[in-house]
Amino acid sequence: MSAAGGNGGPDHPVVVAPLASRYFALPEGARLEEPAGGSPGATYPRGFVASGIVAGLKDSGKPDMGVLAVAPEWREKAASAAVFTTNAFAAAPVVINRTETDLAHLQAVVMSSGNANACTGEPGLVVARAMQKACAGALGVPAAAVGLGQTGIIGVQLDAERLAAGARKAAGAVKAGGGPGFDRAIMTTDRFPKMCALEVGLPEGTVRLGVCAKGAGMICPAMATMLCVVTTDAAVSSPEMQGLLKRAITSSFNRVTVDGEMSTNDSVLFLSSGASGVTPGAEGLRRLGAALDAMLLRIALMMVADGEGATKIMKVAVTGAEDEAQAMKVARAIADSPLVKTCMNGQDPNWGRVISSAGAALAGRSLPKSALHLCGVVTVEGGAASPVSDADQEKLHAGMKDPEIDIDLELGLGAASAEIFFADMGHEYVVINAEYHT
Amino acid sequence: MSAAGGNGGPDHPVVVAPLASRYFALPEGARLEEPAGGSPGATYPRGFVASGIVAGLKDSGKPDMGVLAVAPEWREKAASAAVFTTNAFAAAPVVINRTETDLAHLQAVVMSSGNANACTGEPGLVVARAMQKACAGALGVPAAAVGLGQTGIIGVQLDAERLAAGARKAAGAVKAGGGPGFDRAIMTTDRFPKMCALEVGLPEGTVRLGVCAKGAGMICPAMATMLCVVTTDAAVSSPEMQGLLKRAITSSFNRVTVDGEMSTNDSVLFLSSGASGVTPGAEGLRRLGAALDAMLLRIALMMVADGEGATKIMKVAVTGAEDEAQAMKVARAIADSPLVKTCMNGQDPNWGRVISSAGAALAGRSLPKSALHLCGVVTVEGGAASPVSDADQEKLHAGMKDPEIDIDLELGLGAASAEIFFADMGHEYVVINAEYHT
Repeated sequence: MSAAGGNGGPDHPVVVAPLASRYFALPEGARLEEPAGGSPGATYPRGFVASGIVAGLKDSGKPDMGVLAVAPEWREKAASAAVFTTNAFAAAPVVINRTETDLAHLQAVVMSSGNANACTGEPGLVVARAMQKACAGALGVPAAAVGLGQTGIIGVQLDAERLAAGARKAAGAVKAGGGPGFDRAIMTTDRFPKMCALEVGLPEGTVRLGVCAKGAGMICPAMATMLCVVTTDAAVSSPEMQGLLKRAITSSFNRVTVDGEMSTNDSVLFLSSGASGVTPGAEGLRRLGAALDAMLLRIALMMVADGEGATKIMKVAVTGAEDEAQAMKVARAIADSPLVKTCMNGQDPNWGRVISSAGAALAGRSLPKSALHLCGVVTVEGGAASPVSDADQEKLHAGMKDPEIDIDLELGLGAASAEIFFADMGHEYVVINAEYHT
Repeated sequence: MSAAGGNGGPDHPVVVAPLASRYFALPEGARLEEPAGGSPGATYPRGFVASGIVAGLKDSGKPDMGVLAVAPEWREKAASAAVFTTNAFAAAPVVINRTETDLAHLQAVVMSSGNANACTGEPGLVVARAMQKACAGALGVPAAAVGLGQTGIIGVQLDAERLAAGARKAAGAVKAGGGPGFDRAIMTTDRFPKMCALEVGLPEGTVRLGVCAKGAGMICPAMATMLCVVTTDAAVSSPEMQGLLKRAITSSFNRVTVDGEMSTNDSVLFLSSGASGVTPGAEGLRRLGAALDAMLLRIALMMVADGEGATKIMKVAVTGAEDEAQAMKVARAIADSPLVKTCMNGQDPNWGRVISSAGAALAGRSLPKSALHLCGVVTVEGGAASPVSDADQEKLHAGMKDPEIDIDLELGLGAASAEIFFADMGHEYVVINAEYHT
């Protein structure tokens, strides 16, 4: 029986260039470290080593297991934080992370791709424990100091010994600069690596942030498996890290998805080595947090751009709501509408579909003060269609050809707002999801 | 400026045959009136006349306006009931129905297709009133006795005089047996007419039920415009009719869509002529209600089958929920998932997608007693993947080729349940929605 969460076919072209996104801006004091050879990712911060190896979990023979670890000399200073999926069918690695792992003092993570170890019951827990224990043994750290991540097909049992052997091999292969190799090992249907590295100037000194992530198929955010390892060499405590991470997720991954709608395996792990020797104070933490926000938003935009068949990133901003929950509800209704997604793919300025999905989300209300701008052109004002001049008509049609589209809806009910980024939906989506069989 | 709710391209083939659906069953004492020439629809009950004419609203020159009326000799006995969309951008005809029409004593309805008269502000209300008044004048009834319905593109102003002229023409053309012509006049992207006619034996005598409806694109229920006129010659009161109609909608249209997520124009109008001379008592009303439930479920299944690019009808039944709202939330999460829709289209028994979307809808919970059957084959039991025998594997793959697919999810949390019908999503959907421009 094969039943997949992952789905093949990474051959469709990448159309959107998220690295050039106008939705990404570097915060004060931050510098992007992006050499021609590509981002160094999560091993850019000092005090981290990583690996990516072939454990034999993917039929393709591609790398499928990786370890990222705090270098031995910094283990004592290491701290960590984590956020996991709330999916009711949480996968075995997530369960072990939550119940048998010391998430405030991680010294390493081991991750595998090809099989999600989800919906696998008690045998799946045994497998996840074996992977954790083998990695810990090879590194010489307690099992509870090793975080887990797995991604791939759902409902297929794994062989504990194969996983343990892979974890030992990956732990033995860690090296400085191993971030990109680690990233490659956790990819499934991703068409490009998702890494970022920043240098951040704080009042106390310079620190580094890095990230390795995987995740595609964000067209339907509910279904994307997202694994993300964030690192820093700032000397920060676990509670500080947990606070920074939660806020950064709210302004990044939760703007392309929503907490309550994650896949069975979604995990974000944040490790610090303290290797910079810099301990940020209040202002330093604020700047570090702003840099983390920007870095994870960039990763989130990469995931949208890597949506199956995506050709565009849309930003829907809902303003004038009574509260943020209402604004988010309307934004999601628009972002999740297949009719909106397909007309964006067809570059058709069919704003009636935006209005209809927004109106459905606000059933029973009336919106006499609402206004809608598409690509900066007003199409609805005072709750009714607004005449569009020939010049604006031209601007609208030209705007629809852009790789990034702004949809701005003012509800006229209050002062709250929310934003979501989403991808369009076209033929490639159907090809990948209907024609590639498990 | 053109912004469409409707979207062209009715040329894709009808794959599902809803008339043969195993999800439709005739209730006790009911007989389907379906001659070879097609259903007589809403003029099957005695005491009704109808028309369909060309008012010049559609570029195609096809019929685009119709009137259905109680025959003059039965006007005194006529009663009615109605249910409308709760969309916050309710269209002008819906607003006029709600605020200026006597919904308990309708003697006629006038409906037009091609333009939804939605998002049209005050000028749209003027147009809707003109259509209502012209129809009423030509029939010789009060304006408040004429219900309205419009469907088509959103945000484009109509010409009041053209609408009034059309309404006069349509009112002048009503005739016995005009149901099918009326139905044709309200169709937009519909690929086949949606009519049904039943004869129902009550303890008090025999009465008739009929319906003319339009609605497609139910792949995303939030967006489908649905117009529906139901008739009966039973002598029933307006409060009785309102009760029957609300219940029937709950067990039909609300099982393919949900009240709070209707389009800007959705309307169901129910008219009685009393022409049978039969006044049902309690048991008669029960049987009439059961027949109405079945008739509207059949229409709802036709709308699913006419979903853009649909090749299958899926029935997702969620049992073992704590309450009905929870069951409905999970059922909708599955039914609305593009990943589930596309794998059904590809005939791929990818139950991991069903599990993942259900788990996302129940974030934060754990489901150790859950079970999933796909095409009658158990794939998950006790919250984990269940080994599938070779015979069952074969049954599963064969079942996925059927035009109707059962997805049965037991949550193991309680005793409540809910059911939703939905369509799959394939290339045709994208062709229609991304490639046909407004």
